[in-house]
Amino acid sequence: MLARLCTLLVITASSLQALTLDSLAIHYHNGDLWVLDQQLLPTEEIWIKSQTPEEMVDIIKALKVRGAPLIGVAAVLSVAQLAEKGASASEMEKAALLLRQARPTAVNLMNDIDRILVPIRNNSPSDVISTAEAIFKEDIALCEAMATAGAALVQPEENILTYCNTGGLATAGIGTALGVIKKAHQQGKNIHVYACETRPLLQGGRLTAWELEQNGIPYTLICDNMAASLMRAGKVDRVLVGADRIAANGDFANKIGTYSVAVLAKHHGIPFHVVAPYTTIDAQCPNGEAIQIEERAAHEVRGFGSLTWSPRHAPVFNPAFDMTPAVLVTSYILDKGVLPAESILAE
Amino acid sequence: MLARLCTLLVITASSLQALTLDSLAIHYHNGDLWVLDQQLLPTEEIWIKSQTPEEMVDIIKALKVRGAPLIGVAAVLSVAQLAEKGASASEMEKAALLLRQARPTAVNLMNDIDRILVPIRNNSPSDVISTAEAIFKEDIALCEAMATAGAALVQPEENILTYCNTGGLATAGIGTALGVIKKAHQQGKNIHVYACETRPLLQGGRLTAWELEQNGIPYTLICDNMAASLMRAGKVDRVLVGADRIAANGDFANKIGTYSVAVLAKHHGIPFHVVAPYTTIDAQCPNGEAIQIEERAAHEVRGFGSLTWSPRHAPVFNPAFDMTPAVLVTSYILDKGVLPAESILAE
Repeated sequence: MLARLCTLLVITASSLQALTLDSLAIHYHNGDLWVLDQQLLPTEEIWIKSQTPEEMVDIIKALKVRGAPLIGVAAVLSVAQLAEKGASASEMEKAALLLRQARPTAVNLMNDIDRILVPIRNNSPSDVISTAEAIFKEDIALCEAMATAGAALVQPEENILTYCNTGGLATAGIGTALGVIKKAHQQGKNIHVYACETRPLLQGGRLTAWELEQNGIPYTLICDNMAASLMRAGKVDRVLVGADRIAANGDFANKIGTYSVAVLAKHHGIPFHVVAPYTTIDAQCPNGEAIQIEERAAHEVRGFGSLTWSPRHAPVFNPAFDMTPAVLVTSYILDKGVLPAESILAE
Repeated sequence: MLARLCTLLVITASSLQALTLDSLAIHYHNGDLWVLDQQLLPTEEIWIKSQTPEEMVDIIKALKVRGAPLIGVAAVLSVAQLAEKGASASEMEKAALLLRQARPTAVNLMNDIDRILVPIRNNSPSDVISTAEAIFKEDIALCEAMATAGAALVQPEENILTYCNTGGLATAGIGTALGVIKKAHQQGKNIHVYACETRPLLQGGRLTAWELEQNGIPYTLICDNMAASLMRAGKVDRVLVGADRIAANGDFANKIGTYSVAVLAKHHGIPFHVVAPYTTIDAQCPNGEAIQIEERAAHEVRGFGSLTWSPRHAPVFNPAFDMTPAVLVTSYILDKGVLPAESILAE
């Protein structure tokens, strides 16, 4: 028994040395898991060390790590960290199930955790670690595939409106919707981006604006309520958004306000695309009505950060997501290519 | 000449004693003109003394006094104050023309100033003062008339969505759209209000929420991007908004984001009403395309107040208003009664 344990520890130790992963928002090296605190960006760039799955749950709940693909990646790395520390299978399973419930809407978290539960239940710590690594690296490849597929749709000189943050801060790679934008920019298409600020947590005004600046992409920041008049003025050629869960019929959940943009795009005859990897598709979910929408704390709507501008006890409605029916979607830009709504189920 | 001047001063002095005006946001007494600083509400309730028309222009530009009817009222009271101080007709005319340009979109300011220019040009300071008083008192009566007309449309138990602030902080009376809401509440209709926060200056989250609390009206505060999903869920029975200028064909300008709400209401089959007094109608303006839309400073979108959450130099689009075409309007609730869009011109 002791001999077997020693062997395991050797395997673990060698895996530990092998596992070094880097992205815009996450670093894994020497068993240390670091995440960029996205609540403080772009004012401060502070990295936080997550030492336990419980800490990672808190980090995810507080949206210090956010973005449907990235929370899945961060969660499995937190399990891998436990494997490297020599935790038992039951400890890892408990941690995985805890992480799986950190947020209810984005299905990538559930899909990624379900994938890593297989080597956990097979009692194979080295496979736990290699699965986490594979999920991380696969997410980078998925982003590249989506970006290539989506950029082919973008015409030169387009004005693209995007929502929330769907870039390197939301994935392990270059992003979903923002990945398409980055690729089109790299291809010299001379695009311009309208970034919606995305109340209440301002992922567009803080994170997307920051990423666009980092990538030298021309952009204009707007409040969410300004999109409609830009559309009416003919200043928006295309809308690209991400997704937190796509149901079997193509309905999808994404950051609150996405549905509003979809209705406005439809009204103005503007192409509206959802950009997501296959890990965002929930084939078990028949339609949007079945997607659980997370509601968050009232203080997020009453102000921002430590600043409260509304009456102190103002009653608030604060859903973190909304659901957009497939009928409002022009096409889905997936890692497998561009698909019209009706093809989602066949996939 | 001196005798004539003395007579004038006596008239002025007696008018001075007579003119005492009070509203939620404005006080005039003993020649002192006070306005409630609406940029600090509801966190602080600070009254500012405006001693010259130049000061009032700054107050209006900074939105410390805002709301289409109220800025007209505040501007003519600033001219009346000058009359009480014994200013010459040319000084008053110069001041009136300066005030007329303080903000470009709301036509009430222009209409009210044009009205007070008549006694100024007739060299009748006492008429200047009585005209300002009449405009103030008329605005209260107009609010009552709109509220009565509009409340008749409201059914018991309705959920009403409103935008920006259109209450006692936007008028000398109980308000336009919010006046209808107050009246329906007073009539015991057991209504509930969804107040959109109205980025970037948050007149809904700060001012409407505050007024609703002051009046004991049940409400829920939402971010602007949440209106669509409430509508989809069947939780909005009616939309009531104000206006800053109504063109001859019924197109109207109002706070940025109003057009977005109008498109969403149309998509969901929800009645959408504009509530405004006749002073908001610009018969000389053929349609919405002819309305000048004020653009404001970038820092308003980059953050709120002294807090900046976006990249420091983020390029910004910041129109203070948008234009909603008449085709999206169910009816106009005016002081003269409820009118369908096509009746506006005939009026």
